[in-house]
Amino acid sequence: MTIEASVPFVSSDVETRPEPTSFDADGGIPLPGRNVRADFPGLVTADGRLWHYLDTAATAQKPQAVIDATVRAMGADYATVHRGVYARSADMTLAYEAARVRVARFINAGGTDEIVFVRGATEGINLIAQSWGGANLKPGDRILLSQLEHHSNIVPWQLIAERTGAAIDVVPLTEDGRIDLDAMAAMITPAHKLVALAHVSNVLGSVLDVQHAAHIAHDAGALLLVDGCQAAPRMKIDVAALGCDFYLFSGHKLYGPTGIGVLWARAAILANMPPYHGGGAMIDKVTFRRTTYAPPPARFEAGTPAIVETIGLAAALDYVDAIGLDRIAAHEDALVRRTRDALRGINSIRLLGPEDSAGIVSFEMAGVHPHDIGTILDESDVAIRAGHHCAQPLMTQLGVDATARVSFGLYNDESDIEALLKGLDRVRALFG
Amino acid sequence: MTIEASVPFVSSDVETRPEPTSFDADGGIPLPGRNVRADFPGLVTADGRLWHYLDTAATAQKPQAVIDATVRAMGADYATVHRGVYARSADMTLAYEAARVRVARFINAGGTDEIVFVRGATEGINLIAQSWGGANLKPGDRILLSQLEHHSNIVPWQLIAERTGAAIDVVPLTEDGRIDLDAMAAMITPAHKLVALAHVSNVLGSVLDVQHAAHIAHDAGALLLVDGCQAAPRMKIDVAALGCDFYLFSGHKLYGPTGIGVLWARAAILANMPPYHGGGAMIDKVTFRRTTYAPPPARFEAGTPAIVETIGLAAALDYVDAIGLDRIAAHEDALVRRTRDALRGINSIRLLGPEDSAGIVSFEMAGVHPHDIGTILDESDVAIRAGHHCAQPLMTQLGVDATARVSFGLYNDESDIEALLKGLDRVRALFG
Repeated sequence: MTIEASVPFVSSDVETRPEPTSFDADGGIPLPGRNVRADFPGLVTADGRLWHYLDTAATAQKPQAVIDATVRAMGADYATVHRGVYARSADMTLAYEAARVRVARFINAGGTDEIVFVRGATEGINLIAQSWGGANLKPGDRILLSQLEHHSNIVPWQLIAERTGAAIDVVPLTEDGRIDLDAMAAMITPAHKLVALAHVSNVLGSVLDVQHAAHIAHDAGALLLVDGCQAAPRMKIDVAALGCDFYLFSGHKLYGPTGIGVLWARAAILANMPPYHGGGAMIDKVTFRRTTYAPPPARFEAGTPAIVETIGLAAALDYVDAIGLDRIAAHEDALVRRTRDALRGINSIRLLGPEDSAGIVSFEMAGVHPHDIGTILDESDVAIRAGHHCAQPLMTQLGVDATARVSFGLYNDESDIEALLKGLDRVRALFG
Repeated sequence: MTIEASVPFVSSDVETRPEPTSFDADGGIPLPGRNVRADFPGLVTADGRLWHYLDTAATAQKPQAVIDATVRAMGADYATVHRGVYARSADMTLAYEAARVRVARFINAGGTDEIVFVRGATEGINLIAQSWGGANLKPGDRILLSQLEHHSNIVPWQLIAERTGAAIDVVPLTEDGRIDLDAMAAMITPAHKLVALAHVSNVLGSVLDVQHAAHIAHDAGALLLVDGCQAAPRMKIDVAALGCDFYLFSGHKLYGPTGIGVLWARAAILANMPPYHGGGAMIDKVTFRRTTYAPPPARFEAGTPAIVETIGLAAALDYVDAIGLDRIAAHEDALVRRTRDALRGINSIRLLGPEDSAGIVSFEMAGVHPHDIGTILDESDVAIRAGHHCAQPLMTQLGVDATARVSFGLYNDESDIEALLKGLDRVRALFG
């Protein structure tokens, strides 16, 4: 059965609550698209219609399995971790650390000591900027970013550059909206200590060749940080194969809970990073005269962690892996191709970004503000994002204030695209 | 109906799942103790017996109302905040900001611009240390802590002191384990820029006279930070009446979700604090040349927030307020008195901390390590904490490595104390 065949075309205007998950014939594996939609209680409007949710790049809806894991962790299984002498706390500690094993396996990390739980990718980048950057950057050092970075991969570096006296350089984009690695190779110098780039652009969907970027960075003696927020839900991540030094992603974009994310770094780098937050669990021994710190990852996890969210994240990874990231990637690729082909046929629409975008399509429509597009589509139960997408420097580069952005998840299918196109017909009729 | 009357004495060894919540006669208000236990799915062992959970100072069990709010927020209501142009995102933003209003009212803040959502109190203290401390502390400045502080209110100050060249002084304790405010008044100088103290000790339950401490701090020109982790679940907090400058608490200790906490600070102080984390939502305008920041509280909330947890916290505050913190305080006071009276009668036990501890009783038993006490009690379905409680300097002061700690929540009652005492009989029999 091909991916295309798993995306049934639904032409009827009358949409009802979906059927439960269907499975393929050979292995009992749920198929992406309409078939899994019943697993997501968020994909129904308040009055019971299908919701055409095309804003997964902002945040993903959660499968029932993640909600169920959350309910168990908050209820019958609830206890603190790492400290209790009673059995339920020991069990919860095992579950918490099992989630770390789960994450390490998900991205092929070298070990669990390389996995730090954070609130989200934003916190993770700030942690690296403050801890690694605070200890390693000095006046004269330089940080290399790109023109398409999310504010979360710009502002932390501006803050630490200001504190340390380092400076920031910006890699330009190719004409179709990719980070220009030839330009990067030409501009990097030994003064560049760190390169920080998005794996997938949250606006354009452009995919970075991480291996290539890592070679360029390492040849110059710089470390490579990769913001994987939009990549981790859309393609198989293997940090060993990618060759980068830091990798970050957020749970809530990966069909998991809010309030949890992952910082991966090579063990040798983490081991040399000073503490970030002080508090419980991150210490070895505290006295007022002198405090010593635990080894990673505990050193970077001060205070009671997001226990429940961590267990929910592990459930999300189980869910995603049961479908398979290769299938999800192929599914979203098919949806992107179909969307770009359809939008290209509309004269007033300008498509942004490269043809082979991963799951994300940004566009502008002549004479219509993206916010108006979003508002009118909402009346047809179609949810897209309109705005600067926390990427104002990219907006400047594109020569726009905002874009309309469609982004897919594993639960989207052809019916969502049809609803989008019908809604855009309405926009054109109203603004025509 | 008095609080005492709402704590039925259960002498039978056969305990079964509790009845649903009962209400008092006059106002339909649920009563603390056994009557609310059925609201907490975590208070039952895996095989259906009542669980005598006496570790609420570590983390509180969650009422079903908080779990239900979480399920709705993760499912049918789920969307991102602050950015979506579609209605459900606008609704979620309203719910998120309504939670901020809820928190502001809960502690009588001056306004919602004084409420910053953080992961927990630990992150909140680190945020203040890094942002306020980084901007305001310089060599020669001093920070005043106390001997009973949790590591979360020690290590962040050690980290920022090291960075800024400030120094730390330590207020001693009275003989019964309170922060000695007379000593504080004698030792504070104009070099002290900040005093940071626990409202309620997490080991001893000692309650700080915050108003008095605030007068002493302010007379010397210092600000007062209060770690309210153990106080906010146990007594009505009114930050205006307390007169402090910063107040912090964690959601998970207040019957709410993990991964969420509250930083309160006076608006004028927050307004002058530089950014903490860079990222989405905390900016005004980002360019590579110059970035400007949003006013508080957004300035301190970079990235997608813990949306679901925030809504769960609001549900927890609703639950707690429906019972009433004055009733909870009286209820826990009665349980503490009963426990101390009973333990005082056991020759081998030394009680620690003052008589009027808030909800927390620490003790040691001659010849038995606290971990052994905890392990044996666990066999009788009684959960207590044993260890240094993330307060090693206090352990040094007490002359112990660890204590056994009993801590109460609104759901505890006389039956928990009876189970504890029976379990301690068994400990004595085994070690006698």
